[in-house]
Amino acid sequence: MGLALSLGRRGMGRVWPNPAVGCVIVTAGRIVGRGWTQDGGRPHGETEALAQAGAAARGATAYVTLEPCSHHGKTPPCAEALIAAGVARVVVAITDSDARVDGKGIAMLRDAGITVDLGEGAEEAARDHAGFFARTELGRPFLTLKLANSFDGRIATGTGESQWITGAQARREVHAMRSRHDAVMVGGGTARKDDPSLTVRDLGIAHQPARVVVSRRLDLPLMGQLARTAKEVPLILCHGMDADSMLVQTWRDLGATLLACRATGSQLDPGDVLQQLGSHGLTRVFCEGGGALAASLLESDLVDDLVGFTAGVVIGAEGLPGIGAMGLARLSEAPRFVLRESRVVGPDVLQVWTRGQDMNG
Amino acid sequence: MGLALSLGRRGMGRVWPNPAVGCVIVTAGRIVGRGWTQDGGRPHGETEALAQAGAAARGATAYVTLEPCSHHGKTPPCAEALIAAGVARVVVAITDSDARVDGKGIAMLRDAGITVDLGEGAEEAARDHAGFFARTELGRPFLTLKLANSFDGRIATGTGESQWITGAQARREVHAMRSRHDAVMVGGGTARKDDPSLTVRDLGIAHQPARVVVSRRLDLPLMGQLARTAKEVPLILCHGMDADSMLVQTWRDLGATLLACRATGSQLDPGDVLQQLGSHGLTRVFCEGGGALAASLLESDLVDDLVGFTAGVVIGAEGLPGIGAMGLARLSEAPRFVLRESRVVGPDVLQVWTRGQDMNG
Repeated sequence: MGLALSLGRRGMGRVWPNPAVGCVIVTAGRIVGRGWTQDGGRPHGETEALAQAGAAARGATAYVTLEPCSHHGKTPPCAEALIAAGVARVVVAITDSDARVDGKGIAMLRDAGITVDLGEGAEEAARDHAGFFARTELGRPFLTLKLANSFDGRIATGTGESQWITGAQARREVHAMRSRHDAVMVGGGTARKDDPSLTVRDLGIAHQPARVVVSRRLDLPLMGQLARTAKEVPLILCHGMDADSMLVQTWRDLGATLLACRATGSQLDPGDVLQQLGSHGLTRVFCEGGGALAASLLESDLVDDLVGFTAGVVIGAEGLPGIGAMGLARLSEAPRFVLRESRVVGPDVLQVWTRGQDMNG
Repeated sequence: MGLALSLGRRGMGRVWPNPAVGCVIVTAGRIVGRGWTQDGGRPHGETEALAQAGAAARGATAYVTLEPCSHHGKTPPCAEALIAAGVARVVVAITDSDARVDGKGIAMLRDAGITVDLGEGAEEAARDHAGFFARTELGRPFLTLKLANSFDGRIATGTGESQWITGAQARREVHAMRSRHDAVMVGGGTARKDDPSLTVRDLGIAHQPARVVVSRRLDLPLMGQLARTAKEVPLILCHGMDADSMLVQTWRDLGATLLACRATGSQLDPGDVLQQLGSHGLTRVFCEGGGALAASLLESDLVDDLVGFTAGVVIGAEGLPGIGAMGLARLSEAPRFVLRESRVVGPDVLQVWTRGQDMNG
């Protein structure tokens, strides 16, 4: 199952709206098939592994990181394929909460006389499929919020200088993180100020995550990096219902996907932004700020993972805060996260915090 | 030498203005004497170890974490004591930069026919004696700046709530750190707002570090914890030349030590504050904020170690910053530190950063 999980992860960021599933087929202690969900979400991991195993699948055990699907979608159900191939036993890490599956895949296998064992690697699988589950259950993608800040929590000097607070290794790691998400997201302020391309660079990775910019009024540079590359790498713009219709059309012509979202007060409602992104198919979104967007996501309890790179540099209170005003009245109301990982990355420290309670709880 | 270094550390925070020296005497592979500088700085580590070894010191090897002293102070020189005891060889971790010693201790031993090896454990010894060296060479104590902050670098909410951002284990660790310093220091604002006692608690440690409050005008609560305990645990107040003389006398009567320091603009000059503390004998000072004092120490490049506890809580930009305004014009001017340690402490993460260049460089 460890191998199946690690194969499955190869699809992360590349298979949305589908889950990134890994599958290994073993017979008499020998691996005869390995597969993972392919770019774009098809073929599924099981199909790949079965094709590789061929006749050797008969009587074999299949390790699958998610309950095989039972419904006819764009591909025939994987449960049927496993039955047809004659596997004797299927080890499933976790059930699929999608209403169209939700135990039906396992039932289908058992009805065909196949032994099904459930739960091996469930915890890891729950994390790996967290984006798929968030979209299925909550209608929104899993959200990772990343900050690269100084020792004192600043992302730029008072004059806006931010290159570079963290080192080259941390920036490289950020690109690797981007590549494991379906989309990279920033607020309009960051898009205006930094003119970022939000692409994955210098890792030999051809696949690019989509880019999402949250900008109520769509007042984004029409000659910037994002506009220029909108036809090559997907660009999704979340804007208010009241955005200038000329701008909406201009961005559409430039190649962007436009999603109209509800506003609360002067800001777009972050809950609706994520619902719209979920409806568009995104399962894993990597938000890189700025401070106002980060604060609004935290305030609305929409942040699942909090990733912080901390550099050994001190900027002082005039510096730009990584997280904007949150309007907290009491410390007990402040969002709390649980440490999952902490390690040294070049001269910096990486911390990964995850939401305290179960996200569905 | 490892043992000698660890014995020496027992004296940290308790022996100022003397160095915390450890000594182990070994003969034929057997330890016959172990010693460390005693509370208040006397007897020295070598004296202790020699007393324990007695006649067994003859022909033995002595491991000492700092060059034995060569001058007659309040105790006869340790170099003489080692010669008198008849040791054959002395292994010294590092030379003593005190002008009264500075190689003379080693010369004295060699002149007496003793083999002296220098440099074993020098790096660790340099760190352990950094306070003693800072005072000897720069006239000021070694300064550790500690912050316990939220993920986004805040030490309290906008309404001033700070209990508790970090967990009980982190607070315990802070008390252990206090106990290894000669003094705990805060700014006047923190003393007014939190009414702290700044003592070491809950660790079964009877010895208390001195408390230092930096307050230009001495406008500190006369009925607070610090005032009430000034006769039991040393309290040092660094104030401006222009502080009210009645207040100066009142605090003196309460049992405090008053140090008049120079001001630059509206603030006390942090360089002069540290020089005064050095003259008073302090070698290791542990500063716990607040933000204004922290910023002024950083701005003046007086911070040797930067200790950060980070909790998985987010407070937002209205929160109180752990480090105040620093007036940085460019990112390249921002003080940079090098990571020395990063580890998990309960639910929080501890990071220890140390100044980039050599502090004497």
